[in-house]
This record gives sequence, C-alpha cells and structure tokens, in this order.
Amino acid sequence: MAKLTNSIQELIDLLAQLPGIGRKTAMRLAFYIVRERGDYAQRLSEALTRSAHNITFCEQCANFTDTSPCALCSQAGREQGIICVVSSPQDILAIEKTGEYNGLYHVLHGLISPLNGIGPNDLHIASLLRRLSNNNVKELILASNPSVEGEATALYIKKLVENHDLIISRIASGIPMGSEIEYADSATLGRSLLQRRVYD
Amino acid sequence: MAKLTNSIQELIDLLAQLPGIGRKTAMRLAFYIVRERGDYAQRLSEALTRSAHNITFCEQCANFTDTSPCALCSQAGREQGIICVVSSPQDILAIEKTGEYNGLYHVLHGLISPLNGIGPNDLHIASLLRRLSNNNVKELILASNPSVEGEATALYIKKLVENHDLIISRIASGIPMGSEIEYADSATLGRSLLQRRVYD
Repeated sequence: MAKLTNSIQELIDLLAQLPGIGRKTAMRLAFYIVRERGDYAQRLSEALTRSAHNITFCEQCANFTDTSPCALCSQAGREQGIICVVSSPQDILAIEKTGEYNGLYHVLHGLISPLNGIGPNDLHIASLLRRLSNNNVKELILASNPSVEGEATALYIKKLVENHDLIISRIASGIPMGSEIEYADSATLGRSLLQRRVYD
Repeated sequence: MAKLTNSIQELIDLLAQLPGIGRKTAMRLAFYIVRERGDYAQRLSEALTRSAHNITFCEQCANFTDTSPCALCSQAGREQGIICVVSSPQDILAIEKTGEYNGLYHVLHGLISPLNGIGPNDLHIASLLRRLSNNNVKELILASNPSVEGEATALYIKKLVENHDLIISRIASGIPMGSEIEYADSATLGRSLLQRRVYD
C-alpha cells in the first residue's frame, strides 16, 4: 500500500526528476508546497504553464526568450559587429556580470560530446553560420568552457568559419585571479605559461 | 535591464522560495525545466494544481490526504486502540518503514514553539482530544522529536490527557543502534543512562 496520498506522491515523483534533487529533497519540497499557505502551488503551476507556452528560441541568438528577437539582441547600444558564442544561457549571465563585454551573443545549447551522442547537428550552429553570412560581423569570440568538449566545440566552429572574413578568438585560460600558483593544477598552470602575454 | 526573459525570471523567483533552494539552484532548476524535452513543465504544473485542489486534512488523523478518512486510517487490520502522535507526515513514513507499529496516527503539523509564535492552538490538538473522547483508545504514544520543542509538546499533551483512562507513553531516547558510546553526545548518553531498562 502506498503510504502517501496520490497528489503528494505524484508531486514527489516529478520533483525528483529535477537535477540535484533526490527523493528525500523532493519529499521535503513537496510537503513544503502542500503546507505553504496562500496560493504558492497555484502560482508555481501557472508560472510553469506560462514557461511551457511562452518560451522560444530567439531567432537571432538562439537564447531562450518570451519575445523574438530577445531583449539582448534588440537592446540599443550593443556592438553589432561582435558575437560571443556560449554553450548555455547561464554563461551569458556570467559574462554580462563582468561588465567587460557589450556585443551580441549566440547560444549553442550544448557542446559537442560524442560519448553522450551529441554531435554538431544537435547544437545551434546552423543559425550561427546564417548570422555570419551577413557581412556586419567582424569578430567571433568562442567562449565555450575550457574542457575537452568545450575545446573541441570551439575548434570545430573555428574550422567551419575560418574562410569567412572575420577575427576568430578564444577566451583566455590560465591561473584564476587571486589564486596561488603553488596550488594551481598543472594543466591550468601549463596553459598559462604557453599562453603568456608580452607586456605592451 | 533584466538579463533574463520574464517567464524564466518568474519561475526562478518562485523556485527560490522553496526550502534549501538558493537563487543559483533555482536558476539551474528553471533552465532544466525550460530545456527539458517533452511536457515536463506542463505535467509538473498540473500536479501542482491537483495538489492545491485535492489535498485536505484527514478528518481523523489530520494527515494530508486526497480522500478523507485517509488510506492509513481506513486500512484494514490496523489496531484501532492505539494512536501515535507525530509532528509531521514525514514522521509517519519513517515510523511505517520500521515495521514495528501497526496502530493509528495523529499529525500535529508542528511543535509548540513560543519563540516562533507557535502555540498549542496552532497545532491539531483539538481533533486529537475529540478522538480520545470515544473510549476505544487505549494507548497514546507521544512520538514528537526529542528536542526542546518536541519534549515541551509531548509534556503539554500528556498533561492535557492524563485524566483520560489510557496509557500515555513516550518514544525512547538513547544511544542510536550501531553507534559508539565514546562518540555519543553527553545529553543522549545521559538520557540513555537515566532511562536504562532492567532485563526481563
């Protein structure tokens, strides 16, 4: 016999599918939702329905958006000649927070990963090539993670577009700001030596 | 300017209200929900609506349920003369898992906690007293946590019902099974000495 009433069991089963949420946590969340006074469950339900119905890919940068083109693509004052290629929408938030970039973005929604069955055709690369075919774009920054998949994806895109008339760059890898060389992992330290910069 | 589209921002704001879910985790969950293929968002939305509409308190034991009386209260073969008083529905699951109990339950939905403004009237105690007024009940097990609030709540209920003709018991506290005395905290060890049991 099930020890939990159906509505709660169903909620737990669905919440437990979320990343990083185990059955214990799912149970805690479900009981919080059930116990919460006011209309929390109803409001969350409506937000989920709205997200399912409203969110699409931006026709330009492929970011998630309610309106296409998205707010970033249509924001006044953005440099139109430079595109930063990232693997996920979260990466855009991180880059925007730095305040060091004022160009456009393109979201791949993943990285090439043959082991996980993700090939170039599963990523938003075709729409990137379409953007490059109009000649306003001067520079492409490849800002995928400095991981095996991230490097492979960056290299793949570089080879695809190197016959276009544009600057192709890759974000720098090296010792993080404020860290100590003594404790740096050798891959990172090695990279920071190989890619050392000559003082201007 | 908001860096996130409205539907996602709204979802993040609501998810971040869940216990133990910070803004970073809420963001990860929201992007998972948006990215998930199939109708996950829609199914979670519907489960939430159902939980908001269907779940009530069991008229007998005050547990959350879709149908009143709940499945446990109406389960055949349960001892009707013994009630185990717990503070939350999760405690019922833990006790059921032991396989050591086959009576009924009563859920208080909280513990007396003056510091948090929770008094006896905020708990489901009145319905417990109503159950005791029918004379079938022979024993009341007070199974609130062995914490300050749990002990105070157990003592409060004990005093309320001690003029009834029934056995009132409290779950045992002591050294957990499989643990080592050397590392036990002294409050627990002291309790296990005070409440030592003479061999039959």
